[in-house]
Parts: sequence; C-alpha cells; structure tokens
Amino acid sequence: MSDKVYVGVDLGGTNIKIGICDKQGNLLHTYEGPTGVEQGPEAVLNRIAEYVKQIVSDSPFEWEQVAGVGAGVAGFIDIQNGTVLFAPNLKWKDVAVKRELEQRLGLPVALDNDANVAALGEAWSGAGAGLKNIVVYTLGTGVGGGIIIDGKIYQGFRGMAGELGHIKVVPDLEAIQCGCGQLGCVESVSSATGIVRMAKDAVERGETTTLSLNENITAKDVFNAAKDGDEVAMRIVKRAAYYLGKSMAAVAVVLNPQRFVIGGGVSRAGDILFEEIRKVYAQNVPEAFTQGVDIVPAKLGNDAGVVGAAGLNLR
Amino acid sequence: MSDKVYVGVDLGGTNIKIGICDKQGNLLHTYEGPTGVEQGPEAVLNRIAEYVKQIVSDSPFEWEQVAGVGAGVAGFIDIQNGTVLFAPNLKWKDVAVKRELEQRLGLPVALDNDANVAALGEAWSGAGAGLKNIVVYTLGTGVGGGIIIDGKIYQGFRGMAGELGHIKVVPDLEAIQCGCGQLGCVESVSSATGIVRMAKDAVERGETTTLSLNENITAKDVFNAAKDGDEVAMRIVKRAAYYLGKSMAAVAVVLNPQRFVIGGGVSRAGDILFEEIRKVYAQNVPEAFTQGVDIVPAKLGNDAGVVGAAGLNLR
Repeated sequence: MSDKVYVGVDLGGTNIKIGICDKQGNLLHTYEGPTGVEQGPEAVLNRIAEYVKQIVSDSPFEWEQVAGVGAGVAGFIDIQNGTVLFAPNLKWKDVAVKRELEQRLGLPVALDNDANVAALGEAWSGAGAGLKNIVVYTLGTGVGGGIIIDGKIYQGFRGMAGELGHIKVVPDLEAIQCGCGQLGCVESVSSATGIVRMAKDAVERGETTTLSLNENITAKDVFNAAKDGDEVAMRIVKRAAYYLGKSMAAVAVVLNPQRFVIGGGVSRAGDILFEEIRKVYAQNVPEAFTQGVDIVPAKLGNDAGVVGAAGLNLR
Repeated sequence: MSDKVYVGVDLGGTNIKIGICDKQGNLLHTYEGPTGVEQGPEAVLNRIAEYVKQIVSDSPFEWEQVAGVGAGVAGFIDIQNGTVLFAPNLKWKDVAVKRELEQRLGLPVALDNDANVAALGEAWSGAGAGLKNIVVYTLGTGVGGGIIIDGKIYQGFRGMAGELGHIKVVPDLEAIQCGCGQLGCVESVSSATGIVRMAKDAVERGETTTLSLNENITAKDVFNAAKDGDEVAMRIVKRAAYYLGKSMAAVAVVLNPQRFVIGGGVSRAGDILFEEIRKVYAQNVPEAFTQGVDIVPAKLGNDAGVVGAAGLNLR
C-alpha cells in the first residue's frame, strides 16, 4: 500500500466529482458533492479541499501516498499558473485555483480545461491506453478537443492547442456563425447544439419528420429518430458526421495520430454516427492516413474528466 | 576547437550539398558536387561518404568532433530505420541510407524528408530560432510542411505528420484533383504548379493579361505580373494566398504554434503574398489565435535543408 495515488477533481457548475486513481489510471474511489457556485470561489475552494481530505481518509490510502491533485474546469485556463481566467458555468474570473488549493492541501496541484483532461483520461486508461499519439474529440454542448503526444497533453504556444471544434469545415455559403465568432466551425454543426438547431429548423420548415411531434428536441431524440428510420433525422446525423469526418481528415494530415477517440454525450449515438464518420474520414485523406489509424468511441464515459484530472500529476 | 560539430547532407536529384554546422546551427563550411543519379544508389552513397570526409578534412575540425551526419531526401522515408522507401527524383526504392552511410563513415546517421529537415533548419538557426512551437510551410513544386515541437521534428504515428499541403481547403465544387488523389488540397492551388496552372488556364480562356505574351509561364512570372498591376495575375496570387491562409487557420486551432514560417521558391514573392496570407489568416481564426502569433518568411533560403539535416543529430 505504499504506491503513489493520484487525486482528480472534476469541477462542474452543479457538482464536484473527486476520484482517486492508481498509477495505471484505474479509478479506485469516487466522491461527488454539490459545487455550491452561488457561495463564490472561496467557499467552493474550501469545499474541494474538504472533499479531497474526506475521500483520502475514507480510502485505504495514506495522505502521504497522494502524489498530487489535478483539476479540470470548463473554461479558459492559464495552465502554467493554474488560474481559471474565465469559467462561465462557475461564474469565475481570475481564480488562482492552483495556489489556493496548494495552500489548503499542502500538495502539488495542477489545472487544465475539461476537454484536455478528458483526453488525458482516455489516453491514460481509456480508449487510447498504451498509444503514443491520440486525438480526442468531446462532443457535447460544444465540440472540445485534446491532443495527446507521448502520453501528455499538448498545449501549444498559449495553451490553446486542440480547439478542434473551431476547425472551419463548412463551406462559407452554407455556414452559420459559431460562438467563437467565425463562420463554419465544425462545432456549429456537429455539437449537440448544432444537431438540435438543424432539427428545429427542419421542423419549422415543415419537413416530414417524427421530430415535429416533439416539443423539446434533444440530440438524443434526433439519433433515436434516425435509428427508427426517420429520413430527416438521418440527414441531420449524416451532416453532423460528415463535418466531423472532414475535420478529422484535416487533423490527420497535420498530426498523423494513431487513433481518434470520440467521447461526450453525442458520441453515445453509437454506430449510426461512427460508421458515417469513418466513411467520410477515409474518403477525405490520402490512403496512407487510413492504414493503422482508427476512430473509436471513448471508454471512460463521465469518468474521463476525473481520471484525466488525476493524471495531470503524472510525471 | 573541441566542440561538437554536425554534418548535414542535402541529397538532391542533381547535386549533393554538404555542410558543417556548429551547435548553434551556424553553417560554417559547405561543399557541393554532382549526385550522379544515373550510376545508382551504391555509387551515390560512396560519393556522399567521400564528400563528407573531404569537407571535414578541408575544415579546421577533427573527425572526432563530428557528432553525426544527417541527410534530407525528397520522398517517402522510413525515419525509424533510416531507409528511403521511394524517392522519385533519385529513382530510389528501399535504399538503407542510414545503415550504408554508418558503415562507410563510422558515425551515427539520421535521415528525414526534405520538408521536415527544412523546418528543423529554420527552427534551429533560421526564422524560428529560439521558439518552441513553429510550423514551417515549404512552397515549391508542391506544398511541404514540417512541425517543430520543443525544437524537434514532430513525426506522428507513421512519420506522416506535417503533410500540410494536403489539408483540404478548396470547396468541393471549385476543387481539382491533387497528386495525392484527393480533391481540393491546398497544394493544388498554392504550389508553384498550382499557380502556373491557374495562369495558363486564364491565358487559355483568353483573359486580358500580360501573361498571355509568355510562352513558358513560371510562378515568379505570375508574381512579377501581379506586382506590375496585372489584375489577372493579382487574382491568382490572392487565390494562392487565400487557401494558404485558410489552411493555416486550421493548423492554428489544432496546434496553436507561435509562428508560421514560409519558405521555398514561391515564398520569395514577398509582401504581395505575405500580406494577403496574414489578412486571410486573421479573418479565419478566433481572435486569441492572432495574439502573439506571426507569419514570417524563412531565413535560410536554400541552406535550410543542409542545416536542418545537420540538426537531425542534435539530442
């Protein structure tokens, strides 16, 4: 029982999830509690420290075995300094998470954004385990991305590498504006938001689809309708998959990763989505980029964030 | 005089160029002689070994100071094994350059493709010196690319990373087929070949351009005509720059490099090309990717290959 263990914190707008991993990235213990965003950063940081101490004391591990604590947060992060620059769902601006938690815990603390930690989790003990070069897409409200090179998150010049949702793949004349201000980003089509928007547009246009009976369409509804043979829904799924595949083709010739891992809520659509993505990818790269390269679903599900956060302290 | 020095070999279809660099990447001595491709690989390898011994013995350096020999070759390379898989302009197939030269020289030998070594040269002592993350485009007959991360060439899963010429940026309906088999690669428009093709097409269509007086249009002619106010030539230059800028925008959100370096013959067009590329780039990335990021001409010119080849033995 003297091996090092790694603590991960998935800091969400509603809940804080904490986990302890062994050095292989197996998630051994988890704890989840309310974030209490309304009480402000100070209270949230106190709560995280309290939860971390609690989970370790409830586990069979000694405090001295904890190599470090990592945290993943949705938002803009200054990774080097461990500061949350801006996190919309926490309503935080310039919160020095690393410094504050290190003071409270007396352990090394590392911070990164949610898409990067999810990618690291999948690389450590998920769908990319054992591979040197993988690229992870996280399909949710937006399209997030993380690039893993030699088992580490690749950050780029200012920590902005892996913004895969903002690869512009939709031709200008067909494009709509993305949240980032640009036209035609893959996120504008292939995120849950993009899929729901396309479905609502189709319903509003009066197209013949079972989705028109639905007051509150979700991306899952669109995938289910497509599986049940709804042609309008199928067209939307194919469009989402098409632009994902096109964006992966661009990533492939730049990075030549061995594997693309796709996670996040939208990825649960399964074969109906993956088969189309694989087809479009293969059609859009020179043949050499299809050999030995695959596109697979993520394995860790909602645990990717907490596992990857724990992995931030691997050296 | 006991510091290590690095020998680089730029192995072309016509000439072999050899250089000695110090550990800062300064090119101290060069030697150039005919390749003699027609005599076959064995003779060429013997000649390289002879040239390397000659240049070192003519220099003030001792043989013992040579840390290693690197070679850059246009073609498909098995980098790990140091084998030229296929080099069209040498008419070589499966030549074990690393093994053969190590036997002849008794020194470590490393091999990589021409675009990668040019990128490494610029990163070592050229336009990217001192920066951690740069991306280098080489605009010639094709569009080559090299990605430098932490001062090293990033190879990817099977050594195919940095094939920037095959980012597909031309909308399908406007696209022509690229040498790689795909439609709409940036290489099909922004290489010298692409620029000359567009110029010839314009002349054949009977457009009003000074280029119609030219029997044998080169990319340089197109840039010169554009500088002299020829509107057709200007449109072609803008199109080449537009798709380069679009491809760089895709690279930026994936890799977030600090600097794009553009070399190769076409890059000598200067401001007329660079200003347009910078404008299109800035229009096609979220604002954060423009801050602190620049797009500059290569510095080493034709020496980039020999300097970068020498740099392959930096550890």
